[in-house]
Formats: sequence, C-alpha cells, structure tokens
Amino acid sequence: MNELEKHLTEIVGDAHVLVDADLRAQYETDWTRRFTGEARCVVRPADTAQVAAVVRACAEAGAPIVVQGGNTGLVGGGVPGGGEVLLSLSRLTAIEDVDPLEAQVTAGAGVTLEKLQQHARPHGLDVGVDLAARSAATVGGLVATNAGGIRVVRYGSMREQLTGVEAVLADGTVVSRLSGLTKDNTGYDLTQLLAGSEGTLAVITRVRLRLVPLLPARTVALVAVDGVEGALALLTAARAGLPGLSAAELFLPAGLELVRAYGRLPDPFDAPHPAYLVLESAGRADATDEVLEVLGECEAVLDATVASDVTGVARLWAYRETHTEAISAAGVPVKLDVSVPLRELPALVAALPDTVAAVAPAARPIVFGHLGEGNLHVNVLDAGDAAEQVTDAVLRLVASLRGSISSEHGVGRAKAEWLGLSRSAAEIDVMRRVKAALDPAGLLNPGVLLR
Amino acid sequence: MNELEKHLTEIVGDAHVLVDADLRAQYETDWTRRFTGEARCVVRPADTAQVAAVVRACAEAGAPIVVQGGNTGLVGGGVPGGGEVLLSLSRLTAIEDVDPLEAQVTAGAGVTLEKLQQHARPHGLDVGVDLAARSAATVGGLVATNAGGIRVVRYGSMREQLTGVEAVLADGTVVSRLSGLTKDNTGYDLTQLLAGSEGTLAVITRVRLRLVPLLPARTVALVAVDGVEGALALLTAARAGLPGLSAAELFLPAGLELVRAYGRLPDPFDAPHPAYLVLESAGRADATDEVLEVLGECEAVLDATVASDVTGVARLWAYRETHTEAISAAGVPVKLDVSVPLRELPALVAALPDTVAAVAPAARPIVFGHLGEGNLHVNVLDAGDAAEQVTDAVLRLVASLRGSISSEHGVGRAKAEWLGLSRSAAEIDVMRRVKAALDPAGLLNPGVLLR
Ligand SMILES: Cc1cc2nc3c(=O)[nH]c(=O)nc-3n(C[C@H](O)[C@H](O)[C@H](O)COP(=O)(O)OP(=O)(O)OC[C@H]3O[C@@H](n4cnc5c(N)ncnc54)[C@H](O)[C@@H]3O)c2cc1C
Ligand SMILES: Cc1cc2nc3c(=O)[nH]c(=O)nc-3n(C[C@H](O)[C@H](O)[C@H](O)COP(=O)(O)OP(=O)(O)OC[C@H]3O[C@@H](n4cnc5c(N)ncnc54)[C@H](O)[C@@H]3O)c2cc1C
Repeated sequence: MNELEKHLTEIVGDAHVLVDADLRAQYETDWTRRFTGEARCVVRPADTAQVAAVVRACAEAGAPIVVQGGNTGLVGGGVPGGGEVLLSLSRLTAIEDVDPLEAQVTAGAGVTLEKLQQHARPHGLDVGVDLAARSAATVGGLVATNAGGIRVVRYGSMREQLTGVEAVLADGTVVSRLSGLTKDNTGYDLTQLLAGSEGTLAVITRVRLRLVPLLPARTVALVAVDGVEGALALLTAARAGLPGLSAAELFLPAGLELVRAYGRLPDPFDAPHPAYLVLESAGRADATDEVLEVLGECEAVLDATVASDVTGVARLWAYRETHTEAISAAGVPVKLDVSVPLRELPALVAALPDTVAAVAPAARPIVFGHLGEGNLHVNVLDAGDAAEQVTDAVLRLVASLRGSISSEHGVGRAKAEWLGLSRSAAEIDVMRRVKAALDPAGLLNPGVLLR
Repeated sequence: MNELEKHLTEIVGDAHVLVDADLRAQYETDWTRRFTGEARCVVRPADTAQVAAVVRACAEAGAPIVVQGGNTGLVGGGVPGGGEVLLSLSRLTAIEDVDPLEAQVTAGAGVTLEKLQQHARPHGLDVGVDLAARSAATVGGLVATNAGGIRVVRYGSMREQLTGVEAVLADGTVVSRLSGLTKDNTGYDLTQLLAGSEGTLAVITRVRLRLVPLLPARTVALVAVDGVEGALALLTAARAGLPGLSAAELFLPAGLELVRAYGRLPDPFDAPHPAYLVLESAGRADATDEVLEVLGECEAVLDATVASDVTGVARLWAYRETHTEAISAAGVPVKLDVSVPLRELPALVAALPDTVAAVAPAARPIVFGHLGEGNLHVNVLDAGDAAEQVTDAVLRLVASLRGSISSEHGVGRAKAEWLGLSRSAAEIDVMRRVKAALDPAGLLNPGVLLR
C-alpha cells in the first residue's frame, strides 16, 4: 500500500479501501458489460465529511477519481478508464424525514430510487422520476445523469425534481444548497449546473427533491397502432383527452418478440402490428372511461387491452419494462439513446434498419422508447466487430434530423467521441471552460463527457 | 462621435445608436426609479447577427455593456452603473410559428410576454409563466432573471419553461440550442446556466419555450383567513383538493387598504381580517364546487367571495395584482423579494414590522407574495434615509430563517452587497470562476450580481 491508499484508509477505515483485484472487480465493469477498466483502489466513504477528505487527499496526490453510484449507468461513465481511485457513494444512505408542508425530502447520494419511493409513499407522496433500474440506481447517479424514465411526460426529468444539492468540489470544498426553496434567484444555480454533469464537475453527496402526489389509481392501455405516425396521433389525442397522462411508451414488433420469449409472456394481440404503445393515466380516480374514449376516437388504433387493477397494470407494463433486461440477456448490444423532434420520429424509425444493415448486415436493431420526448433507445444486437460503425452511422442519422446523440443516458465514455454531432464547437468550448473553472486539474471523471 | 460609436453605427444604422442625453434618458432609469445611471450610448440591434457584431465591437474596444430588455426588472440590473454601452434587445421581436406537435415556440429576446401569450392562445396553448409586467417584460429578460410570477405553484419558474436558447457570448460568439428537444443530455446545459444569470454570462437573443394547455375555465376565490398559519393550512388543503390549483397569492390588511385607495375598489369584506388569499383553479371545466368544498372544510377561512366569470375573475385578481402599481404610486419603496421555508413564513411575517421599525420608525412595510413558494415581496414605503438599513435588517432576518434574499427578482445591483447572506463563500467563489470562464474581461453587466 502506498501513501495515498494509507491516507484513504485513515479517512474511511480498513474495510472501505478495496485494493485487491477480486474485491474491486464488481465495481470495475458496468451493467452493460461493455465498459470495464481497472481502478487503483475502491474507496467507500460513509458521509459527506469523509467524501470531502477523500477528494482532498486525491487532489493533494494528483490522483484522478472516477465517481460511482449504483453502477446502472449505460454509457460507461461510472467505471474507470484505467488507474483512477474509484469513489463509491453507496454508503451515503441516510434519508431525512419527508417534509409534508413543502412536499420535499433530502437524501444521501447513495439512496436508491426504490428506497426513496418506499420512504415517500406512506406520506401520500412519490418521486417524480421512475425507471426500471430503480432498485439499484442511486439519487446521486440520477441527478448526475439527469435521468429521465417513464414519467417525464408528466413531471419532467431529474433536473425538474431537484430543489437542492450538497456536493464536494474537486479540491475537497463542500458546497451546500439544501434549504429546498422552490424559488431562489441568488446567482448562478449550481444545483442545475450539476444536474447532468456526469460526475465531471463535483461529487454529489446529498440531494433535495420535490415530491409529487402519490396517485393511487392507474389505468394502463397496451395499444397496437398502425405505425409511428399513428403513435404520434394517439399521443396528441392522449395529451388533449387525458389530464392524468403519466406515460406514453413506444415499442416495435422485434422488441415484443424478444420480450415475450425472455419473459414467457403471452401474445397480447391476435396478430402482429406495426407499432405498440403503453399509455398510462394516473390520478385519484379510475380513468378507464377516459382512456377508452381516447382510444375509441383515434383512427390509428388497431387493437388495445386495458387494465386498472394492480396485477393487470403490472402485466401490461412488463411488455415495455422488460425490454432492457431481455436485450441484455440476448447479448451485449450497442446501446444508443437518441431523441429527435417529434415530427422527425417516423423518418428516424423508418431509416434505422437500412442504416444499421449498411454497416452491419447481420445486426438486429431493437428499438423502443419514451414517445413524448421523441426519445428512442436503439439497441443493436449481433453488431459483431461493427459496434463503432453502427454507433457512428446511427448517430449521424440522428444528427441529420436535428436530434440529440444522448437523450437521457448521458455522454459518458461511450458517446464522448460523438458529442460534436449534437453540440457546436462553440458550445463544447464553453463546456471546457466551465470544466476548467471547477476542476482545473481535471481530476474528476477524466475521459467522461469531454475527452 | 468616437471610434466605437462609429463602428456601432455601421452595424445597426444611424437611427439605432442613441448618443444624445434626451434620447438615452428613458433607458437609463429603471421602473422603480431607484436605479439610474448614465450610458455611453444606447444601441438597438435588429437581430442576432447585429447583436454579435455589436458585442464583438465592444469586446475589441474593451467597452463594458449593460443588457436591457423591457426594463421592468426591479433590482437595477438592466440600467447602467455608469459609462457602459446600453444594449437594448427591444427590436428582436420576431416570433416563429407555434409548433403544435411539440407545444413549443421560438421567440426573439425582445418579444413581450403579452405578445407571446397572444401568439400562443389561438392554438389552445399558453405561456407557463405570467406576471403583472406582461405588457413590457420581454422573454429575454424573463429568462435572464428566471422570472416567477403567479403560476409557479402550477408550472414552475421561467427555467422550467425553457427548452432552448440562442445567445451571444462576451466575445461575440453565437451559441445556439434551439431544436427544442425536451430531453437532451449532451453535456452541461448552457440553457439552464443562462436562466437567472442576469445578463452577466451572455446576451440572450432567442428563446424556445414549452407551452402549456390553455385552460379556459378559471375559478377565483378571494379569501379572508385568520393569519399566515391559516393561509398555509388553506394552501395545503388546496393542494390536496384542487388538482387545477393555478395560483395561491397572499396579502395583508395594509396592502388591501393601499390597493383599494389606489384603484377605488370596494371593500370585499364586511370587516378587516388578519390575512387574505387569492386562490385560483384553472381547468377545462368550472371548479366552483371543488373550490367551495375546500373553503368550507378549512377552519382558517373567515370569509370568501368566489367568481368564475371573466369580469368577476378580473375584479378579484385586481386586489392582488395592483399591489405593485399602487405601492409605486405611493412613493419609491425599498423593494425586497425574499423567500423562506414555508414553516418559517409565519415567523417572518410576525417579525417584519418590528424589524423595520427598529431602523426606520416612520416606515410603512407592505407585504404580499406568492404563498406556494414562501415568497414575500416586502415593500417599505417612507423609509427615508434608512433604505440601506431597512434592506440590511430585513435580509438578515430572512437569512436567520434560512431564506433567500432574492426569491424571484434576482440580485441585480440592488442586492449584490447582500449575496453572502444567502450563498456561502464557496458558492460565490464557484460563481466567480464560472463568470471568469465565460466573460474573462468582465464586460457584461459589470457590478450586477457579483461585485
Ligand atoms: C434496466 C435499466 C433501465 C434504465 N432505464 C433508464 C431510463 O428509463 N431513463 C434513464 O435516464 N436512465 C435509465 N437507465 C440508466 C441508469 O439507471 C441511470 O443513468 C441512473 O441515473 C444511473 O444511476 P447510478 O446510481 O446507477 O449511477 P452510476 O451508473 O453509478 O453513474 C452514472 C454516472 O453518474 C456519475 N455519478 C454517479 N453518482 C454520482 C454522484 N453521487 N456524484 C457525481 N456523479 C455521480 C458517474 O460518475 C457516472 O458518470 C437504466 C438502466 C438500466 C440498467
Ligand atoms: C408591475 C411589475 C410586476 C412584476 N411582477 C413580477 C413577478 O411576479 N415575478 C417576477 O419574477 N418578476 C416580476 N417583475 C419583475 C420583472 O418583470 C421581471 O424581472 C422581468 O423578467 C424583467 O424582464 P425585462 O425584459 O423587463 O428585463 P430588464 O428589466 O430589461 O432586465 C432584467 C435583467 O435581465 C437582464 N436581461 C434582460 N434582457 C436580457 C437578454 N436578452 N439577455 C441577457 N440578459 C438580459 C438585464 O441585464 C437585467 O439584469 C415585475 C415587475 C413589475 C414592474
């Protein structure tokens, strides 16, 4: 053990500096298994003071750090590039009492989304963001990636839930803004700057979030539509006719097939259809009638099955929610997460198969996503050696439609090379200047987001 | 005319460089008449290219700039400190067509809020932010100050409406992010960084905003309650019982008296009461029954009058909305705009009179505000020579309750001295570093926000 490791041990205790390769291993590979890198050691501080001391020790030693929460990120931002100190926030799990008057709560960065949901719900409140990785993804990671998920159509992304943050800067200084004021125009909003900064500007140690009303009644429709244009027509109708619209998720026949095989799910419809939608309405009262009315009036709808009991709701959601797992079980996909203006979505979906086939003829693209934001998850299985070419071809297609090369997963290591497709040189220059202002030595997550 | 003025004239034309004192005058004093300063000249570019050329010319000449929109700001941020080039965005009034599929619109920085509302409403859409200065306040100014207003309880502040921005950096570079993607995690969000930056980081030239459904049915209740605690109890009940809650505004007897005298309004109640609330519910259908039920069940309610016809709604709103004008007509007040955690609001309101009286015995504090965010506008009339002391005493009281010294109006020149009461030295240091990264020569709005 050298000087730095000794110093870190003094700060967090023997048990929480992992130097042996087998102890480090589970932290060094990401959820997708596409990204892996060796850490110098893994450090697991218990609280903000320990995080600050760890970061200060690393800064003094000039040692780069990679920051990790639940390690469910999909762009390789939380695993080492090679040789960094891996700083895990997983032990920062304290949660404060829910503040019912403000409808807010403060939680340690290492609290999982699921734990926070369980903490809020007895108060008739809920977290505004939800996603399938809820049991492992941490609030620190969710804020650092500005995570989206299935409720964005109603409540916005993680950024919109955020009313405060406590963070440790690259030199070990603690900055804190946790009073939870919903309106506080006293200078540049550091909280908002850290949302989506992917661990490159500061280490988030605590977050304060607004909570939303827990809506007990959920009505879900699994709908077959005549195509992506039809799905958009139904979205427009649902926005107008369902004040409680809480999700609008798209998937396609290839995804349905994969998911059915993986989860042994019955075929929801008699025949295959061009596209599928999961629509959800949440509120205080059952919305089955409203949902049926919207479906009945939309010409794009070919077939539908509706549920509003807990089992039925879970059964229908499974067709959409097991996509990520089913794909992962089928191989190590090229994972792309893009969005385009809604009116370009049909063109994107139409062009994808040929775009992929041109560079990887045997590849299987599986496409699904969050319709309301024009956000598609493009997963390409069996890309073989052509992962790089597939990425390049799809992201260029997206850019040609004025889209984003990363809609909700962030840039990480996976997309850093392509950032220039979505952001201009002038914008990237501003980002570099902000990065240099906050982390002049470039110690936090080097190689992530900005190369 | 010297070199720079000549150069500016070449860029924007003779008619739009105002050098004469009488032509400059209307730009040099703010709405409150408390802030005034001489500009070197006023420049009125017509579009983004001209703004970029003007900023570049000033940068080359090392000439500081003060940025102005509608000049309705209340903290002196848009008027000169002395000797700057005053850059007015008032001619950037182009508005693009409403995009009905995305429910978004792009508008020039000089478009007023009212114009934008008129532009959106025929499409069944509306702007998510509304405030009494709507006829003059510009979208550029609203974004630069992250304005709040009467709809924050439902839709959030200006920041939450923003899906994109085009801006000119201090060296004249144009950065643009106007594709309007609701989810786009490709690096630090410059759009969000500029929201609330008060013209100190860049000149905003265009903004893209989400629009919200136009809700035709409005029910308004003017309610007398037994105090601020009672107002909070009613707020909690309204949040639970009125899904359409769209405003919750507080005012006090002294304000009601002033507003009645100014607007010759009848007394809405038989007797004076400790505190008043304007509650509004907006939706597709009339909510009078729901409003009456919420009022009926809340013990804090002493009296109430409810309206849902256009005239009645306007009549009740007038008691709240003419506060700013009525106060301005009564003198030049010390204007403070603070917020505290909701649970501290009763303590703040209770302590204010004595706090003010201790430093300015003859002063008259008039207090009103946006209840949902714990946001009070504290206007102190007849403070005489004690403006500075009143400001200091009230802001220290607010800070002692973990509040913000500027809730929605921003810091400007007026509050720069007190920023340290709400933000730590570490946070202010981060702000300075961000400012230096984007505007190294300190040419944009010197003396505003950071001194
Ligand atoms: C099955 C599945 C479904 C998913 N669905 C969605 C979805 O619908 N929407 C969506 O947006 N994402 C989704 N994701 C991606 C992932 O869950 C999110 O990106 C999540 O926010 C990551 O949280 P984490 O704690 O696991 O972060 P990690 O994976 O540990 O880290 C992610 C990034 O954040 C940084 N980071 C983590 N913690 C901190 C901290 N405390 N301070 C500073 N930086 C930090 C890391 O350095 C890294 O760059 C899904 C993932 C899986 C596996
Ligand atoms: C009667 C009245 C009621 C009000 N009610 C509210 C309220 O309820 N809530 C609220 O938040 N505010 C309120 N205000 C304050 C004011 O309307 C807002 O601050 C508004 O956002 C200012 O817009 P403006 O175009 O007039 O900006 P200005 O006053 O011209 O400028 C304000 C600040 O923004 C900067 N700025 C302006 N335009 C740009 C640009 N294009 N690019 C970069 N920086 C720029 C200026 O430099 C200055 O620092 C009220 C004001 C009045 C007079």
